[in-house]
Amino acid sequence: MRNIKLILQYDGSSYSGWQVQKKEKSVQEIIESAVHSVTGETLRVTGAARTDAGVHAIAQVAAFKTESSLQPDILLRALNANLPHDIRVRDATECPLDFHPRYSAKNKTYCYLITYPGDYSVFIKKYSWQIPYKLNCAVMREASRYLIGTHDFSSFRASGCNSKNPVRTINEIVISEYSSIDFMGFNFDVPLIKTSIQADAFLRHMVRNIVGTLTEFGRSKINPLGIKEILESKNRSVSGPTAPGNGLFLEKVEY
Amino acid sequence: MRNIKLILQYDGSSYSGWQVQKKEKSVQEIIESAVHSVTGETLRVTGAARTDAGVHAIAQVAAFKTESSLQPDILLRALNANLPHDIRVRDATECPLDFHPRYSAKNKTYCYLITYPGDYSVFIKKYSWQIPYKLNCAVMREASRYLIGTHDFSSFRASGCNSKNPVRTINEIVISEYSSIDFMGFNFDVPLIKTSIQADAFLRHMVRNIVGTLTEFGRSKINPLGIKEILESKNRSVSGPTAPGNGLFLEKVEY
Repeated sequence: MRNIKLILQYDGSSYSGWQVQKKEKSVQEIIESAVHSVTGETLRVTGAARTDAGVHAIAQVAAFKTESSLQPDILLRALNANLPHDIRVRDATECPLDFHPRYSAKNKTYCYLITYPGDYSVFIKKYSWQIPYKLNCAVMREASRYLIGTHDFSSFRASGCNSKNPVRTINEIVISEYSSIDFMGFNFDVPLIKTSIQADAFLRHMVRNIVGTLTEFGRSKINPLGIKEILESKNRSVSGPTAPGNGLFLEKVEY
Repeated sequence: MRNIKLILQYDGSSYSGWQVQKKEKSVQEIIESAVHSVTGETLRVTGAARTDAGVHAIAQVAAFKTESSLQPDILLRALNANLPHDIRVRDATECPLDFHPRYSAKNKTYCYLITYPGDYSVFIKKYSWQIPYKLNCAVMREASRYLIGTHDFSSFRASGCNSKNPVRTINEIVISEYSSIDFMGFNFDVPLIKTSIQADAFLRHMVRNIVGTLTEFGRSKINPLGIKEILESKNRSVSGPTAPGNGLFLEKVEY
C-alpha cells in the first residue's frame, strides 16, 4: 500500500465543486474515475480543501492510497491522459502513509479577484466578481487588519458549516490593486483587485464572506473599525454578502 | 435607415465561428438574434472577418442597417443585456450608410498564441496552441521577413477559400517571446510565443497556415530562405500544417 500525493490545477467553471455529489459533476469524482481507469481501483481521493461550485485551484493538494506499483511520474502522465482539459495533475509523489491532505496542512492561501466595469473583457468573466462600482482599497486594507490573528470567525462562516470549532488563525491578508489586466500577452483596460488570504484553515465560505464584507467597507467608506464589531458579534447576519464562487482561487497549501 | 457599427469582443470557444451555419451556433447568429430582441427586426449583421470555429476576437467590427431610432449607447446596453457572457458589444456608433465592415477595412491584425509545455496551466488551453517541443524564434522571425509585402499567398490559403484574387499585402509580422504568462494577476511558468500579423486582408486560414509553417522552421531550424520557395511555389501542399483555431485572436480592424 502506498500513499500518493497529487498537486492539481483546475478551472472550476464546469464543476459543482471538489466534493462528490449525487447529481452533479465534481472534481473529486473526475479524479477518482481517472484513478480507476489507470489502476483499476475504486478508491477515495481526499482533497486539502473542499472548494465550492465554480471555485478554481492553482494548486489543490490531494492524496489516495493505492496498491498499484506504477511510479509517480507514470501515474501523473496516465492520470492526465484520462482527465479533461480543465483538470490537470501538476505533480505526483509518494508520501508517508500518515500524510493527510487536509489534516496535515499547516497553511492555505486563497486569492479572490474582483474587477470593475472598465473596458469589459469576455475573457475574465469566469475568473472574477465583476462589480459595478469603485472600491476604496485603502479602506478595505485598513478593515482587513482587524481580521489578522486568532479569532472566532462565526460572523464569516456559512450557515451550513459543520466545523465544531469556529476559531481560525489568519496570518496575512494582502489586497493588491492593478489598473489593468494582463491576459496571455494582451492587456485589458479593466481594474483588478486581488485579495490574498493565508490562514491555518478556513471555515465554509469564510474567504467569500470576508471579501463580500470588505467590499461593503470599500464601497461606502464605512469606518474600518466596524469590522471589529462584526467579528466580535460572532453573528453571520451582521456581515456582508457572500462573494460569488467564480472569483475564488485556491492558490497554495503548505505542510 | 441608419447604419450602426459595432465593436465586438468574443471568446470563440463555444462557437462554430462567425458565420451563420445551419446546424451549429455561430457568433453572427447570436448577434442577429440579440438585434431582433432589441429592435424587432430580422436583419443581417455583417462582420469584418469571418472568424473560424474556436477563434476569438478582441475587437471584431460588425455593422447592420436598422429602422430603429434607438441611440447607439442605448442599443449597446440593450444588445449586451441580450447576449451571453462570452460575446460583448464594446462600442456602438452610427456610421455612414456606405460603411461596410469588410470592404471598407484598410488593415486587419491577427495574433496567434503558442505555448510550450512548461508548468501546464488549465487556464490557457482554450487560448493557445500547446506544442510539445521548443521553437527557435530567431529562425521563425527570419523566415517571416520573406512574407512581408505584396505576394500571391496561394501556398497559405485553405483549399475551400473562394477569394478570386490570392494577392495580399502583409505590412508587418511581429514575433514576441515571453518566458511566462501573466493571467489575471497570476503568473504561470509557461513560455508563450505571440505572432502578430497585420495585412490589408487575409485569405481563408492564411494566418493559421503561416503560423503552422513558421513553427516547422522554428522546430527544425530549416534554412529560413526555404519559406521564399514555399511562397513562390503558390502550392498549398508544400507549406506547413494549419495551426488550430483556438490560438487565434482577431485583434484589430483599421479603416
